[in-house]
Amino acid sequence: MAQMTSLSTALPGRAARRAPTPTAASGVSAASGVSAASGAGAASGVSAAAPLYQQLAHELVSLSGQGALRPGDRLPSVRTLSEQRGVSVSTVLQAYLLLESRGVIEKRPQSGHYLRAARAASAPEPRTARGSAQPRRVTVSDLVSRLYGAARDPSLLLLGGGHLDPSLLPVERLSRSLASVARSAGGAGVAYDPPPGLLALRRQVARRAAECGVAVSADEVITTFGTMEALHLCLRAVARAGDAVVVESPAYYGLLQLIESLGMRAIEVPAHAQTGIDLPLLTAALRQHDVKACLLVPNFSNPIGALMPDEAKRELVQLLARREIPLIEDDVYGDLRHEGARPRPARAFDKKGLVMLCSSFSKTLAPGYRVGYVLPGRFRETVERLKFAQSIATATLPQMAIADFLDNGGYERHLLRLRRALADQVARVSDAVAEHFPRGTRISRPRGGFLLWVELPAGKNAVELFERGLSHGVCIAPGPIFAAKPRFATCVRISCSMPWTERVASGLQLLGKLANEL
Amino acid sequence: MAQMTSLSTALPGRAARRAPTPTAASGVSAASGVSAASGAGAASGVSAAAPLYQQLAHELVSLSGQGALRPGDRLPSVRTLSEQRGVSVSTVLQAYLLLESRGVIEKRPQSGHYLRAARAASAPEPRTARGSAQPRRVTVSDLVSRLYGAARDPSLLLLGGGHLDPSLLPVERLSRSLASVARSAGGAGVAYDPPPGLLALRRQVARRAAECGVAVSADEVITTFGTMEALHLCLRAVARAGDAVVVESPAYYGLLQLIESLGMRAIEVPAHAQTGIDLPLLTAALRQHDVKACLLVPNFSNPIGALMPDEAKRELVQLLARREIPLIEDDVYGDLRHEGARPRPARAFDKKGLVMLCSSFSKTLAPGYRVGYVLPGRFRETVERLKFAQSIATATLPQMAIADFLDNGGYERHLLRLRRALADQVARVSDAVAEHFPRGTRISRPRGGFLLWVELPAGKNAVELFERGLSHGVCIAPGPIFAAKPRFATCVRISCSMPWTERVASGLQLLGKLANEL
Repeated sequence: MAQMTSLSTALPGRAARRAPTPTAASGVSAASGVSAASGAGAASGVSAAAPLYQQLAHELVSLSGQGALRPGDRLPSVRTLSEQRGVSVSTVLQAYLLLESRGVIEKRPQSGHYLRAARAASAPEPRTARGSAQPRRVTVSDLVSRLYGAARDPSLLLLGGGHLDPSLLPVERLSRSLASVARSAGGAGVAYDPPPGLLALRRQVARRAAECGVAVSADEVITTFGTMEALHLCLRAVARAGDAVVVESPAYYGLLQLIESLGMRAIEVPAHAQTGIDLPLLTAALRQHDVKACLLVPNFSNPIGALMPDEAKRELVQLLARREIPLIEDDVYGDLRHEGARPRPARAFDKKGLVMLCSSFSKTLAPGYRVGYVLPGRFRETVERLKFAQSIATATLPQMAIADFLDNGGYERHLLRLRRALADQVARVSDAVAEHFPRGTRISRPRGGFLLWVELPAGKNAVELFERGLSHGVCIAPGPIFAAKPRFATCVRISCSMPWTERVASGLQLLGKLANEL
Repeated sequence: MAQMTSLSTALPGRAARRAPTPTAASGVSAASGVSAASGAGAASGVSAAAPLYQQLAHELVSLSGQGALRPGDRLPSVRTLSEQRGVSVSTVLQAYLLLESRGVIEKRPQSGHYLRAARAASAPEPRTARGSAQPRRVTVSDLVSRLYGAARDPSLLLLGGGHLDPSLLPVERLSRSLASVARSAGGAGVAYDPPPGLLALRRQVARRAAECGVAVSADEVITTFGTMEALHLCLRAVARAGDAVVVESPAYYGLLQLIESLGMRAIEVPAHAQTGIDLPLLTAALRQHDVKACLLVPNFSNPIGALMPDEAKRELVQLLARREIPLIEDDVYGDLRHEGARPRPARAFDKKGLVMLCSSFSKTLAPGYRVGYVLPGRFRETVERLKFAQSIATATLPQMAIADFLDNGGYERHLLRLRRALADQVARVSDAVAEHFPRGTRISRPRGGFLLWVELPAGKNAVELFERGLSHGVCIAPGPIFAAKPRFATCVRISCSMPWTERVASGLQLLGKLANEL
């Protein structure tokens, strides 16, 4: 192992660029431990009063950067470094975790820790959205329709979608489950399964919820047609046309379309690339407006991939609880953390039944099965009634097939493989973007999910890149669809939803070329 | 064959009881030929100027009733009677059809025509609802929740539901289709199938629509989660909270719940047991109120089983077209005519793209698959956008399985068997009700579907019967849930949704006993 020199140059501007938005989120970050420690520490030095692991991490960064350790090089093993430095294994592990969370190093399964490819690591993260948070009637641009039209074109390289490539999903195993339950269920398989839905599935959902800190019985769970129907039901349960609903900015266009379709108004509160919605700005918005609900994605939000630290989630829940405002929580990416324990949903901090947790198996097993669920808290009866009125029942056999899959133990192993694959895909796509896109491009560093938020340098038009990409056979999602008002003109969302291939590599290279030509 | 004597005593009060509501519907009936001829002709005599078949029918009725021909006896074959009377086969056929439509005789497959069991035939039909048609905010009683709670109790005899017993459905064949498409689809089976939905299924829907007079391309079809989601999308496409929507009275409580859940108001326009919604009253309601849409079930409405004659459908469509009011047509029972050709949907008469035809395979193949569709006419784009916002996509494999079933030719044969079975079940349940229920009970005579609307004599409380039935293990649907305002206190809906068994027979006998004790 070569001499390690300062790696701090690998983090230019991260601290500076995140500084301009003085928010409670930074305060929250400080309190939230390793995973949320900001890059500022690395850039500003760490005092001797800092915990040992932080000192070690800082030392490692300081020792790097003199050319002896190159991107892609392997770091000493945890045991080796522990012996070399005379610190505990746990201290080294924490130091490595901190550096991982900063994107300085990466852990490769069964191999060890590596210095991340310089290009992605050196790219700054996208900036936080600015602007006031006025309620706006949502109008969805026809860009979304074009994006969905493109999704049906098999000749396109689809880097714009929010769903995983089927090659990452347990297709065979699910088909077997479905065939098997169809056979064994007999008449029950063709019969209605009225709300709240299949008990076997609701039990599995409750069991998994308990594992991430949400104590709930199967009785509270209601199954739905995917997360989207769950969110829809929750919104209808607590708000009506004309009401104001808080979303993050940028927000998944599907959520904006949902709000639009219900005639509600969206209040867009800026979210930080690492820590999610800006709590001081949210507080201000709640003071200023009569907000009927918040519709947020605390775990690996779409498109920026932010993960709210536990403390921020707690603060969010308390903030809303004081005002009796329901939080509709979209946790659909929660199972997809690249490394480490599954993050808790905000619902884990709820004491008043005000957090309505929505999720599905669409990002982990089978989007086409349309099996999701909601834990509606105190709104259970209303949501169940609306579910009946809206679609009578969730399809029976797809629920049975998912429950069978969860029952028979394949899910955890599958998730482990999937999370590793996504971590790898995100790293590779990030590096390709860093390599090929114009200088000054910013790239998000999601710690879960498979979406990248990419901010082109000022003056580069994302819609133009979308158009040119389409005409060259590559589809990405243009930034403006992630906002109700004109915003994110220089941003695009790129999905790392398919295994890395030459085709993906060439597509990203082409996009970079097109972006440079803009 | 014994001497035939007057059967006119078998029709007491039908004419008299349907007379009190002087409506355009009777006028429409007169123009619509055999199937809609009212019972009035039989009671009042037929002039020599009437068509030959009407004279013959009248003669048959007049010759009956002197005790020689008993309920259940076989009538002369068409050929025999044609030779005996010296009239054409076609005239005899028309006469028999007329008597069938009046419930005087019934046709049994491959057997011939029979005098219907006297009891059911002698029971009058339920009366048409009265009262003004003021828009009302809908509030769903907890009776519906209790009805649905009961549906989950396996110990109950369920005569209150709107879904068929699985023994009547092609369970095995569908399971095989599902297993087969899951295997062959591979990754496509777990992937999203974004709106408008599966092309193979949309082609089948378009083909079948063409067969009943609706010229439509697969491009217009959008697949949905059952009829209910289709109706929901249509309502949202053309109306908003506070708007007034016309429904029949009585109306399926699911439609009332849907309207309630969207914050809309229902205008309940009385419907006749044979011919459906009262067009003069509808016209008056349209003059009086700002109606945004009509949500009707022209073919075998739920609960009364009315079949609007073609001419009435045409008039309805024209009436609404003049005012540019969309008709949301629920055709979910359209495939279930007991005898004769499938009736045309109102959409067949639409020239302006104002009729949004909704249906599904929930009453014919598999309610639990949740596969339906909508032909949204001129509202196609809006409905497709709402479908995406509401549930992203219809589940992929259930669509594929239904399309496979339709493709492989099993559907028509299955429908034929199913329609015969339902005709038989409806006849048997009707007779049991006529036999066991209190004197003066009125029973609907649906010519399709599997629902009976039963009106108890004045003073008998239907909710009380519902409660007592439940406590004795039999579930029926109480009349008041079929109206937004307090109505139908003496009515119940009884489903003929399961094959005739001793258990069903005993259940009806028990209900009759309870009704007599009220």
